[in-house]
Amino acid sequence: MKKLINHVDTVLAESLDGFAAAHADIVTLGAERQFVRRRSLKPGKVALISGGGSGHEPLHAGFVGHGMLDAACPGQVFTSPTPDQMLAAAQSVDGGAGVLFIVKNYSGDMMNFQMAAEMLDVENATVLVNDDVAVENSTYTTGRRGVAGTLIVERIVGAAAERGDTLAELKALGDAVNKATASMGVALTSCTVPAAGKPTFQLGDDEMEVGVGIHGEPGRRRVKLTDADGIATELVGAILKDLALKPGQPVILLVNGFGGTPSLELYLMVNAAMKLLGAAGVQVVRHLTGTYVTSLEMAGCSITVTAVNDEWLQLWDSPLQTAALRWGM
Amino acid sequence: MKKLINHVDTVLAESLDGFAAAHADIVTLGAERQFVRRRSLKPGKVALISGGGSGHEPLHAGFVGHGMLDAACPGQVFTSPTPDQMLAAAQSVDGGAGVLFIVKNYSGDMMNFQMAAEMLDVENATVLVNDDVAVENSTYTTGRRGVAGTLIVERIVGAAAERGDTLAELKALGDAVNKATASMGVALTSCTVPAAGKPTFQLGDDEMEVGVGIHGEPGRRRVKLTDADGIATELVGAILKDLALKPGQPVILLVNGFGGTPSLELYLMVNAAMKLLGAAGVQVVRHLTGTYVTSLEMAGCSITVTAVNDEWLQLWDSPLQTAALRWGM
Repeated sequence: MKKLINHVDTVLAESLDGFAAAHADIVTLGAERQFVRRRSLKPGKVALISGGGSGHEPLHAGFVGHGMLDAACPGQVFTSPTPDQMLAAAQSVDGGAGVLFIVKNYSGDMMNFQMAAEMLDVENATVLVNDDVAVENSTYTTGRRGVAGTLIVERIVGAAAERGDTLAELKALGDAVNKATASMGVALTSCTVPAAGKPTFQLGDDEMEVGVGIHGEPGRRRVKLTDADGIATELVGAILKDLALKPGQPVILLVNGFGGTPSLELYLMVNAAMKLLGAAGVQVVRHLTGTYVTSLEMAGCSITVTAVNDEWLQLWDSPLQTAALRWGM
Repeated sequence: MKKLINHVDTVLAESLDGFAAAHADIVTLGAERQFVRRRSLKPGKVALISGGGSGHEPLHAGFVGHGMLDAACPGQVFTSPTPDQMLAAAQSVDGGAGVLFIVKNYSGDMMNFQMAAEMLDVENATVLVNDDVAVENSTYTTGRRGVAGTLIVERIVGAAAERGDTLAELKALGDAVNKATASMGVALTSCTVPAAGKPTFQLGDDEMEVGVGIHGEPGRRRVKLTDADGIATELVGAILKDLALKPGQPVILLVNGFGGTPSLELYLMVNAAMKLLGAAGVQVVRHLTGTYVTSLEMAGCSITVTAVNDEWLQLWDSPLQTAALRWGM
């Protein structure tokens, strides 16, 4: 295992300390590093909290800040955070208007967020993200997995929370954005969880995993590596089949690297995806390209498409200041 | 070779097309993709142009925009752009106040930018960046290499150009920022140039290259992989020795991933570097952490420190809008 670490047991703690030091203008760490929260809260705003296993950075801590999350609870690598972390985060950022949990659909996360929601003596609701169209049910999931589309849900709902939407409105908006969002990914290599010390899965030198999950879970099929256009055709095809968009539909296109994919390749995939979406009559009105929802150092990428309306676009464009995404301020 | 590509010969063209489509609000492509330039130019401003081999993305095209570069010339992967590209870019973005070339110190880049400078019938000057303290002379370089510190030079000089500094002032500022900047990197894995199809260099399963260049050039020594604190001690030590800072000196700290390094590890390196800089009495007043000056999918990182004064900090903080870096607007 080749990693820039000291001890397997302290990877997360040391990384969170570095993150908090680097972004001290935006975030602060909760006691015992239970959560990352905004430095400044906005009283009367619904508090948005997400979280999940670490190893997907910048998701979620990198999305804490104005216009997105209020707090993120980091579990150990690929391991759900505990209900205690979620409760501590909720108590820290509750501004009197309730708490909205945004949860990727993995069994561990679901169970722990549900326990926290039941224990919390503050009005709360949960948006479940399950944008991955690759497979129904998977290694860690009943139903579809929550993957890179989580970024889009967190951003649009975060912007609406900033403008003062109520908990019920935000819950409805989050569910609607999730429903309008579809993703699918492909892995060219595996990744290595520090505590495991060996690759999560094995992939031959000429193979790829089509429909991979963000923990390296199996997708639709393992096949010989094909070219970028072939990969994009399969990913975009599955997404369009799921969303069943009308001609001319405006969409946000997110091309997301899993951690080990050069920018040069990600933009090549943008080009491939654009041609396919254009041919399908879909109108890409916003792009986001980069390494945002990762599986440690896995090579590969996912494509996410969200069908949007004017209001959602306005929310997308509104001022945003987090460690990983920043515009308009 | 596992890459998201179609044909080796069209990687750069397809990637540039995707980049231009994704960031059409900020940039546009020159004819025959000779350069990436700002969509909107500012008449009367000195034009800043950089460039170099591709494979280091987001450097340089990702830094084109308000507050940074006016144009970037992308060569083929790890290959200098041609003087024709630089001339075409200069003619396209010249605003009547002269052209400043910002060039990383590699023999090929130096030769081609010098030819362009001589052929250009517009007042021009060149800032040479050579921030890599690892080695004197290297595979592609006479003297010290230009690496991640280039980002800091391009940003501070770009901000000064935006406020209206003259060509002579910008040349002096760029030279001063370069002199105040030192970097050193470490590689844990090699990288594969698409046209070559095999890794640029070989590194054993338990080895790292200390002082590696951004094309995988040899550094100071190849040794057994050590822990993050040990690596940070060597990199920061070499940087501090070079800069010979006074106690309390304010600095910008850039922890840069080479392409295949997870964010989790980069922030762990931030934590390690912060402790060392604190112990040395240096005051880190700004952080930048991410994958900015890369060697395709190489795993590893570099640390860069720039000694700053209040004026440079103001320039650093001023509004910036590029594909890869954005704040204040």
